[in-house]
Amino acid sequence: MRAVDIIMKKRDGKELAKAELEFLINSYVAGKIPDYQISAWAMAVFFNGMTPVETANLTELMVASGESIDLSLISGPFVDKHSTGGVGDKTSLILAPLAASLGIKVPMMSGRALGHTGGTLDKLESMPGFKTSLSVEEFKKIINRDGFAMCGQTKDIVPADRLLYALRDVSATVESIPLITASILSKKKAEGTEGLVLDVKFGSGAFMKEADQAEKLARSLVDTGKALGLKVSALLTDMDEPLGNMVGNFLEVEESLDCLEGKGPDDLMEVTLELAARMAVHGNKAKDSDEGRRLCEQTLATGRPLELFFQNIESQGANVKETLELRGKYRSPINAEIRSKREAYISRIDAWKIGSGSVNLGVGRNRTEDKVSPTAGLQLFAKRGDKVAAGDLLAKVWAADEAGLKAALPQLEEAYEYSDSPPLKKKLILKEIK
Amino acid sequence: MRAVDIIMKKRDGKELAKAELEFLINSYVAGKIPDYQISAWAMAVFFNGMTPVETANLTELMVASGESIDLSLISGPFVDKHSTGGVGDKTSLILAPLAASLGIKVPMMSGRALGHTGGTLDKLESMPGFKTSLSVEEFKKIINRDGFAMCGQTKDIVPADRLLYALRDVSATVESIPLITASILSKKKAEGTEGLVLDVKFGSGAFMKEADQAEKLARSLVDTGKALGLKVSALLTDMDEPLGNMVGNFLEVEESLDCLEGKGPDDLMEVTLELAARMAVHGNKAKDSDEGRRLCEQTLATGRPLELFFQNIESQGANVKETLELRGKYRSPINAEIRSKREAYISRIDAWKIGSGSVNLGVGRNRTEDKVSPTAGLQLFAKRGDKVAAGDLLAKVWAADEAGLKAALPQLEEAYEYSDSPPLKKKLILKEIK
Repeated sequence: MRAVDIIMKKRDGKELAKAELEFLINSYVAGKIPDYQISAWAMAVFFNGMTPVETANLTELMVASGESIDLSLISGPFVDKHSTGGVGDKTSLILAPLAASLGIKVPMMSGRALGHTGGTLDKLESMPGFKTSLSVEEFKKIINRDGFAMCGQTKDIVPADRLLYALRDVSATVESIPLITASILSKKKAEGTEGLVLDVKFGSGAFMKEADQAEKLARSLVDTGKALGLKVSALLTDMDEPLGNMVGNFLEVEESLDCLEGKGPDDLMEVTLELAARMAVHGNKAKDSDEGRRLCEQTLATGRPLELFFQNIESQGANVKETLELRGKYRSPINAEIRSKREAYISRIDAWKIGSGSVNLGVGRNRTEDKVSPTAGLQLFAKRGDKVAAGDLLAKVWAADEAGLKAALPQLEEAYEYSDSPPLKKKLILKEIK
Repeated sequence: MRAVDIIMKKRDGKELAKAELEFLINSYVAGKIPDYQISAWAMAVFFNGMTPVETANLTELMVASGESIDLSLISGPFVDKHSTGGVGDKTSLILAPLAASLGIKVPMMSGRALGHTGGTLDKLESMPGFKTSLSVEEFKKIINRDGFAMCGQTKDIVPADRLLYALRDVSATVESIPLITASILSKKKAEGTEGLVLDVKFGSGAFMKEADQAEKLARSLVDTGKALGLKVSALLTDMDEPLGNMVGNFLEVEESLDCLEGKGPDDLMEVTLELAARMAVHGNKAKDSDEGRRLCEQTLATGRPLELFFQNIESQGANVKETLELRGKYRSPINAEIRSKREAYISRIDAWKIGSGSVNLGVGRNRTEDKVSPTAGLQLFAKRGDKVAAGDLLAKVWAADEAGLKAALPQLEEAYEYSDSPPLKKKLILKEIK
């Protein structure tokens, strides 16, 4: 078998056999096929796609390229959630203890801030002492005790994805639905989950700008997930405006605490509860998502999810008392305000511009090696549809340094769009794919 | 400027600016852009093509990546021919001295056998002592004296093409019309020619199997050639059957001598004279191709092209007496015959199978580092349309070794197709693109 013949076959629009994909992936991971052949293959996949069978085979082969976590000694059910990434999206921090309170185990392996989107690991690490780098044994022990654990991928998990993703990133082949599908699902499969709820976002702040593209990705993820034996469904959710009122690392921990205390903002609670409802269904705790939603609302009201969140903070090396003491105070001293330019309705807050601005504030990274700031970010005091007067406070902004603030402010101000009449209502959750 | 953004732009179907192509090519040649980005870009070009302006810019940038030959001290006109490659295609050996006899200077830089197609350099080197590796000074001196010189590319000529071609070969991106165009024309432009006749072949033995694909390539070559200031035209010629009756290295030198002596086979003479007629036009020796053809026929009859061929043999290190002594005798001792299986018309001799078989005989190469045999090959005694009886001699076959003979014979025998009625006449030259 020769790599060039396999590339040619995909280039010419044919389906690759499992043995051909196996040769590509295994030889690549073993260093026997060079990057320049894999990048050409990835570009051919970008153009010609993959059949559902090919996508499932690729995902399985990527899982098989490394270790999978064996959760068999822990009693399930195991259900996880994955989001395609957004601005202000802290649902994981609320969902994990909420699902755990239902008796579901959540083996959550998350990522870091990427581009304009935030990263769960960076948010968690803003709590002093919180450790997201866990050994497999620690991961399992914490899941068993707290019902959930949140950590980064160990290096033994899906090495094929780590290699492939780094290559796709520099060869303009990230935006391929089958390759995205295999990347996401291989990691979820390897972490040992049985059920998976996908939050596939669309809009300016999402990876997929258009709802129809997001739906294609959701369809591919759900179909491939099923082929891999997962219980899986997806929600298409709007990411044209930041989710919730806080964008930042510790700021988002704080807002997650608000949610767990029953005082979260409506949009964030809506997405969180709808995702949690599907987790309840996949975990056999509810017969349908309506029942799941009611169950989640009731459970949240008991305060048990907050208790489990505190328990997990301690399990992963942080301190509840210290975290609570920082609440409302842990902010960078370099700050500014954004105020309304006129009396108007806020017709849009462009999530992409808020996300890009927040990277400059220090919330995210321009380069992989950059450090993020726990105390940078912004708090929104008005959202889409709100009526504001000239000079009203729209947002408070905290930056890691003066240069970042200077770069971010024009971007953040530009994110605001005004209109004289109230904007049309938008659906936050467009549809479910299952 | 970042390579990944340029790849993405091409991937998304946009035209690259000259500055972007310049950044790609110059950085690649300087080792500052890795192969994996260029192979991804080449695959994006395979799918999205290039505009005529982009193709011309790429070609110019490739020329500028190395040295160009300065022929200004030699009086022109300078006209060359390039073929996209075929089986039994020895027209260069006849054309060069024929055009030189008209007072045209032919600065011919050729290639080696590649895949199932033969290579002019390998044919020439089958004459003991013939040197195809010339310095620029030797190349110019021989052109000035003999009217033509035939050599391989020096390493300073279009280094971007050498790098790019090697990468395309292993990344399944050879078959891209703009990339083929830039590869061919950059080398022709750098060798210093002013006029160029292209023999774009189609059929099983050609690089382009279908006439419409060949026509697209011819159109791209002609348009881009004009944009580069070349006088250029192309003939689309049939390569479904080997050209002439000899396939091999010294065997093809012998058949070229036959042609120069006025006793060449009809098909080979037809293609040669039609190509030569266009060289005469581009060299301002004839007002149109009809006049050019008559001029070439008359000139061939004078014997002057044969004299110049002999003169060039001596200039490039071989010996006319020795070459002529080998004629009819310089054959590998390992040989076989192919005989007709039945009384029938030969309806087809598949050039691809003959070419593949001849590689096994030792005429060409399976790997770049393989050596070719001067004395291997085959001589055809019947061509398409000929009526044969059972047991009639169809071909004599000479192989470099027994294993090669054994591998080649079934391929060569399979190349023959028979029918009870005579096959329809085919046009050898389908059309001219200018």
